[in-house]
Amino acid sequence: MRFVAEIDIMPLPNLLDPQGKTVRNTLHSLQYSNVIDVRIGKHITLSLEADSEDQAKQMVKDISEKVLINPIVQYYTFTLKEAE
Amino acid sequence: MRFVAEIDIMPLPNLLDPQGKTVRNTLHSLQYSNVIDVRIGKHITLSLEADSEDQAKQMVKDISEKVLINPIVQYYTFTLKEAE
Repeated sequence: MRFVAEIDIMPLPNLLDPQGKTVRNTLHSLQYSNVIDVRIGKHITLSLEADSEDQAKQMVKDISEKVLINPIVQYYTFTLKEAE
Repeated sequence: MRFVAEIDIMPLPNLLDPQGKTVRNTLHSLQYSNVIDVRIGKHITLSLEADSEDQAKQMVKDISEKVLINPIVQYYTFTLKEAE
């Protein structure tokens, strides 16, 4: 079975996000002064083969924690669905 | 009212994504050979004030199309909800 995981990798909430702050300031200078906060991270779409949804989920967790994120400064969330 | 938009900005489907390809190759070399494809984009969490959900939606579209994305190589999707 083929699955597609949509993974979001974001800076931890208590960390500064200079890139997000810069975008927020740019938006303010462009009259979008009602923007309160901007935080910028990565979005990863990962397609994989697995025998079951549980196996796919475990694999996405493994890959995220061992390869994709740096847990000192980032956290991740993901959704998984079977590919059409 | 305060709203939170979760915006995904991804490389267009028919474009190569060298960063994603590199991650896929790395995963293959780490025994995750069942990974078929990896595509990497940005995830942006944007909090804003607006009078209604429709106004917030329009503002997120404006900001995405005028500031955040390059439509030649990227597309975006977003979800919007009222902040708690």
